[in-house]
This record gives sequence, C-alpha cells and structure tokens, in this order.
Amino acid sequence: MMIGGHEDKEHRRTILREIARHVGGGKLVIATVASHEPEGYFKRYKAAFDGLGVGDLCEVYLEDRTEALDERKLHAFDNAAGVFFTGGDQLRITSQIGNTPIERRVCDIYLRGGLIAGTSAGASVMSETMLTTGRGRESYRIGDIGLAPGLGLIDGVIIDQHFAERGRIGRLLGALAQNPRLLGIGIDEDTAIVVQGDTFGVIGSGAVYVLDAAGVTRSNIAEQEEDRVMSIYDMRMHVLASGHSFRLDTRRPSEISSTTP
Amino acid sequence: MMIGGHEDKEHRRTILREIARHVGGGKLVIATVASHEPEGYFKRYKAAFDGLGVGDLCEVYLEDRTEALDERKLHAFDNAAGVFFTGGDQLRITSQIGNTPIERRVCDIYLRGGLIAGTSAGASVMSETMLTTGRGRESYRIGDIGLAPGLGLIDGVIIDQHFAERGRIGRLLGALAQNPRLLGIGIDEDTAIVVQGDTFGVIGSGAVYVLDAAGVTRSNIAEQEEDRVMSIYDMRMHVLASGHSFRLDTRRPSEISSTTP
Repeated sequence: MMIGGHEDKEHRRTILREIARHVGGGKLVIATVASHEPEGYFKRYKAAFDGLGVGDLCEVYLEDRTEALDERKLHAFDNAAGVFFTGGDQLRITSQIGNTPIERRVCDIYLRGGLIAGTSAGASVMSETMLTTGRGRESYRIGDIGLAPGLGLIDGVIIDQHFAERGRIGRLLGALAQNPRLLGIGIDEDTAIVVQGDTFGVIGSGAVYVLDAAGVTRSNIAEQEEDRVMSIYDMRMHVLASGHSFRLDTRRPSEISSTTP
Repeated sequence: MMIGGHEDKEHRRTILREIARHVGGGKLVIATVASHEPEGYFKRYKAAFDGLGVGDLCEVYLEDRTEALDERKLHAFDNAAGVFFTGGDQLRITSQIGNTPIERRVCDIYLRGGLIAGTSAGASVMSETMLTTGRGRESYRIGDIGLAPGLGLIDGVIIDQHFAERGRIGRLLGALAQNPRLLGIGIDEDTAIVVQGDTFGVIGSGAVYVLDAAGVTRSNIAEQEEDRVMSIYDMRMHVLASGHSFRLDTRRPSEISSTTP
C-alpha cells in the first residue's frame, strides 16, 4: 500500500483503518528509518492506530547501516503481519536497509502475503526506480530529475507523493519521458493505492493520477541541455478517486462497484 | 497572444519583444482594466517596453462600467496596432467592458489584424468560457470549478495561467471534463502562446500544457456531490516548450524548425 503522505490520523482514518484491516489482529512494524529525527513519529502513529484493532505495534529505527545487522532489530520483524514505512527521506531508507538482513525480512513478509505499506518517502521506495529530487511548481527542465534505485517490491511503476499539493506532475512526466516502460503513479495526500496482484484500488480523500507514456510520440528528454524545458507529446492520463481501480497489466482503469468498507 | 503571467520585464524580455515586433512602430494600448488598483502598472510596462520599438504606449483604465461609454476612453483605441490586457481579476475585465463600445473596438482591432495580447487574467478572458475560480495544489473536487463567459476572441479553447507555479492541472481537467469539446491550454509563467490562424506557437522560458479530452472514456463530473473528488479516464496531454507549435484544427503538436527570432 502506497500513501501520498499526510494520511488522516485523527478523524475518519480511512487509510490507517485499511492498514489495520490487512494486518488483522497481528503485529505491525512501524519503520521510521526515513526520518533523520524519528522522535515522536512512533508515538503519533501509536495514538493514530488506537482502537483500530492492530494486535501489536513496534518501532524499528536505525541510527546507521550497521544496526541493520543487529539481531535485536531483526527480531522486531518476527511474526510481523505488516511493515509500515513512515515519511522522511527515501534515500535514508534505501541506503540504510538496502541489501541487508532487514530488507530481506521485509521481502519475506511481503512474499508470504503480509502487508507492506509506506507513506510519502515510504511510498516512493516501493518501486525499482524512485524519484528523489525534482522541483515542483515550475516548468520542468530536462536536468531537474533525480532518480535512485528503490526497494523493488513493485515492478514497472514509478511513484510520486504529495502530488497535487506540491504540483509534481512535471517531475513525474520527466521520469516517464526517460523511459516510457514505466507507469507513473502520482498520489495526493490522505490518499493511497492498495496493490493486490496486477490491480490497485484507490482509497482516501484525494485522487491518484496515472500517467501512461506508452503512446508518447516524441520527447526532448534525451537532449543534452539540462536547462531546456521538457516537451512531450501524447501522454495519456487517468485521474482516479476512491472507488476506482487500475489494472497494471492491461493499463486500464475501471470503477469498483462498491468502495472498500 | 496569451501569456501565463509574470513575463520577464527586465532581462531578455522575450515575450514583450514579441509583442513589440507584432505592433511594429505602431501604438499599443495597455488595458489595466483587470486591476482593482492599477497604480504603477502602466509605469512598469512603460519601462519594460523601453527600447523595444513600440511607437506609442497609452493606458486605458476604467473606474466603472459607465466609463466604457466615455468617448475619450474610446479615442485611446484610434489607430492602435495592438491592445495588451494586464493581470488582475478576469471578471473585472468582462464585467466592465463586456458588450460595450470598448469591447467592440478591441474586436475591430483584432479583426483587422491587430495584436490582442493578455497576461494572467488578461490571457484567461480571450476564450468563450473562462476559468474564474478553482483551487490549485489539492485534489480536484467536482464542485470546485468557477467558469464565466469570456471575450470570445478565440473559439474552442479554455486557458489557464500560472500553470505549473500554482499547480492548476486539476482545475483545467475539471473544466474539460464538463465538456470535452474544449481544448485545455495551461500556460506557465514567462511563457506565451502566439495564435495565428489555426496554429499557435510557444515562446518564453516555461512550458505550455495542452489537454485534449476528445478520447476521454469516462468521468464523474456530472455527479451531484460537489465534494466528490474528480475521476477521469484517458485524457491526452502534450507538454510544449518554446519552439513547438500546435494546430488547433487537427489538435496535433509539432516542432518548428527554428524558434521565433
């Protein structure tokens, strides 16, 4: 589950409720690795999940990469039904846990059907390649993009978050122009996609933007001048609100008859 | 010519230079009608056009609608080679000059080949239907849109300005979902489209976004719940930088061999 950041923690808690539902009465690991200053994060989520029926909540934070080898840290993942990556800096997540036993524990949980969720930076890291920098709210220039390898839990997509709020369509378009193989998914705040198999559904109060570059007929992204403004022809876009779903294999949207309870 | 606002007035002045080129050595009327407090606007543009070869610059401002019948105000348009609408509130332009002799003078100048330019609010008013309200930087809700009749100098399009800077893609998508007949054109700051016949070219330092809803297969814009987040499938988008052009009749982009000098 990828969340666009700022999920509601006090009122309807639609997204946290969905996380709790997936975890059942099981254990949820809150991984605050993305944060430089994790103080208060765990406490806030502990309060936010209160009453939603999660059996056990525990925090995993790493001061540095060597801690990713620490047996006690690894034990936190024992019998976990889910892992939730909170926000911060996506490079902190990948540089701290990439190719460590902790990453393998996360993958194991995922492969045996557990829930892997992430918000903001925690959402971006799910893909093979992730956006790390790129200014919002201005004309997109060829050299603006910053990409890095992600955790690779989901193939063929690139995810951006705080999407409408930070005016990020330019940077996602730029990433797709580089390689139209990837599907671009921009997620608004308090909004999430729940991926199951080849399909994702949308939940939350905002929208999800799917950018499909398969039909793009031209772009100038391979030009050498970094300061040149991007141009790109024939991008396809879908805007999906709660209750809509999208098939990643056929790249087609549809409406779910009833929204997730 | 429609400008996305904040055109450069001090350095390269690409857009103002293009206005001056169209006007030749002739007279340019600076219409500051959109502004509630026009003080300083004209002075700033007078300085900005300095040295660009405009023969004569004069200001037209209206305190209220009755002044649009004032003979002296009308004389300002005599022999004008162009009219430039500055920024402010688009409803001030249309409510002050709509269906008045001043509007007819502007149309006359346009029909006999003169230049009609506008920046920000002055760009929005050019179309039949114009966007007046609609929040940027958040998920777009069905009831967010505010539209009003524009001056109607250009058919079949709806224009938005400060586009990347104010994260306005949601509101333009919303307007198009209402009627896919219209073509959506979002213009970044310091960027302009120059319409000649059925084609426009892009100039300036940012990008122009063309949204073509012809292929849209579904949207929820006709639903009654105003607070519902918009969903829309299969929107086509082009991003055009300086040096690109777009044919309004065939709705196809292309690259101009050399940019406008």
